[in-house]
Amino acid sequence: MSNRVTLSVDAMGGDFGPHVILPACISALKRYPYLEILLIGEISQLDDVFSKQNCPELLRSRLELVSAGESVSMDEKPSSAIRHRQDSSMCLAVKAVGEKRADACVSAGNTGALMAFGRMVLKMLPGIDRPAIIASVPTMTGHCYILDLGANVDCSAEHLLQFAIMGSVMMEAVEQKRRPTVGLLNVGEEIIKGNEQVRLANDLISQQSGLNYIGYIEGDDVFDGKADIVVCDGFVGNVVLKSSEGLARLITCKVQESFTRNWVRRLMALLSRPVLKEIQVQMDPSRRNGATLLGLQGIVIKSHGGADKKCFGYALDQAIAEVLQNVPVRISERLACYMNAPDERSSE
Amino acid sequence: MSNRVTLSVDAMGGDFGPHVILPACISALKRYPYLEILLIGEISQLDDVFSKQNCPELLRSRLELVSAGESVSMDEKPSSAIRHRQDSSMCLAVKAVGEKRADACVSAGNTGALMAFGRMVLKMLPGIDRPAIIASVPTMTGHCYILDLGANVDCSAEHLLQFAIMGSVMMEAVEQKRRPTVGLLNVGEEIIKGNEQVRLANDLISQQSGLNYIGYIEGDDVFDGKADIVVCDGFVGNVVLKSSEGLARLITCKVQESFTRNWVRRLMALLSRPVLKEIQVQMDPSRRNGATLLGLQGIVIKSHGGADKKCFGYALDQAIAEVLQNVPVRISERLACYMNAPDERSSE
Repeated sequence: MSNRVTLSVDAMGGDFGPHVILPACISALKRYPYLEILLIGEISQLDDVFSKQNCPELLRSRLELVSAGESVSMDEKPSSAIRHRQDSSMCLAVKAVGEKRADACVSAGNTGALMAFGRMVLKMLPGIDRPAIIASVPTMTGHCYILDLGANVDCSAEHLLQFAIMGSVMMEAVEQKRRPTVGLLNVGEEIIKGNEQVRLANDLISQQSGLNYIGYIEGDDVFDGKADIVVCDGFVGNVVLKSSEGLARLITCKVQESFTRNWVRRLMALLSRPVLKEIQVQMDPSRRNGATLLGLQGIVIKSHGGADKKCFGYALDQAIAEVLQNVPVRISERLACYMNAPDERSSE
Repeated sequence: MSNRVTLSVDAMGGDFGPHVILPACISALKRYPYLEILLIGEISQLDDVFSKQNCPELLRSRLELVSAGESVSMDEKPSSAIRHRQDSSMCLAVKAVGEKRADACVSAGNTGALMAFGRMVLKMLPGIDRPAIIASVPTMTGHCYILDLGANVDCSAEHLLQFAIMGSVMMEAVEQKRRPTVGLLNVGEEIIKGNEQVRLANDLISQQSGLNYIGYIEGDDVFDGKADIVVCDGFVGNVVLKSSEGLARLITCKVQESFTRNWVRRLMALLSRPVLKEIQVQMDPSRRNGATLLGLQGIVIKSHGGADKKCFGYALDQAIAEVLQNVPVRISERLACYMNAPDERSSE
């Protein structure tokens, strides 16, 4: 890898397309002097939005606008995208990574289509059956990574093991955290523990002495920060993440209601504004925007569709961090170790 | 049913046993002049705690202390409880309902054991395979019921249908809400929709024209109040509920941190105390304490193990409301209708 980092960015994805994504890219080019961006989209739209930006000439040389014939809609089925949208901004962004013209790609578009293009163009890492979506959430002690967030609704015990390994490597690489703890999400201790897959996965993961496995954790442990990596199937992960976003919204709304009920309170709100603002920022799920499609032979980052400029910037940050840490290669190396020595503990 | 309501209460369950439960019962007897309570536990402990209470003589006549030989520990397996703890306070409380000496029972003890005693003593309603745990959570528009919360980790489509019916009847009966909306919890719209059981359940529930079914909902819809009843398997429900409690705790903690960072802020916190207190109360999961084991031929309410006096009182309130609304009989009647006309829509 040269000293430069090149990102291919799908300009057409998300709710606001280039209107948000182009300014976010310019801002990232300012933050990272070694960054180059291939911004892919409908070229007339890109030119139009670009003409309204105040982009210094020095940055302009590191931003290449690339024409794409079409784009993928948010409700298009992955199978249809694969068949009919290979000339889309999203697919071209992934292809740029496959052809080594970019080190990572970022899109705020249709997750299913992005995953399908990722698998088709980049292929899976050896030993990984399916990609997993991983993202971080805030906890009492900082933050943790949780996976899978919806790529796989039915997971075998082997898949959960693969998630544990990939999550561990990801955190070690991106956060420089040594031997991060891994917890397997399960139901309350009072009830007969978990379902078949979870019990089997517990056995499998326990056998991997390379992992710092702490066993089962429960729903409330996620935000308490009990584990650095929370492993679960994509159905559970998706529901946990989305319900948390919903609850955070509910609480924000209740706080605002409480502070506007009468004049005295509105005055209080005015005085407390810095504090309330700070809390709102901490609770803002977009602060940690940028989910990774893990398990591919290349870096693909999914941004929230509703991301604003700042929020899309976090997804770009995430992509750059993973390029600098060479995440897919590291996962691949660690996987090879695990595959060759699957039950170190039992042979001790 | 007479004009009196009799509750049998397991005095030994939960983290604090009679020290919390006895005062909560006395307080409930004050609130409900028609209430009688059989308080079951180790009699010397009950007498001891009772002697320290200031209980008016008039109330005393409506409170019967009943001796139990033993109690169920929080980590005892249901199978072991069934075999060895039939003389426990928990089992005797359930038996009081089975023998019609009480209209409902309440326990803050081991959920698995409570469910096992419920099935053994009270039996399931005809047409219901397994009990489900149901509780309500706050939403933007008020609150919704969610089930199952952990009684069943593997659910078939038929089970999910039964949950939909039971939840509907519960809300109609207890909240006097006509045709409450039912949503089936599923993963994000971008991903290939749900797993096999959820897709099958969607078909089954759609066919029940008696239900006000609104189709799939996602995690964030739960707290947005999109559905009055949220149906999911016990693994997902348990994780959603517990992770929400964890997140609420995290946010409360961050709010406190924000308000104590310096002197000015501490002053703000002092001035804003009524508002902050109000928010904390709204976010407090214990406010809605009292989960119902639905599907039994009798009313069994599970309180949080960590409930304080006020919080245990909510569980007693819930039990009384279900007695007054005759919930199990209503569910039974509605089930009979559904079972006799399973696909009204298709025969129209």
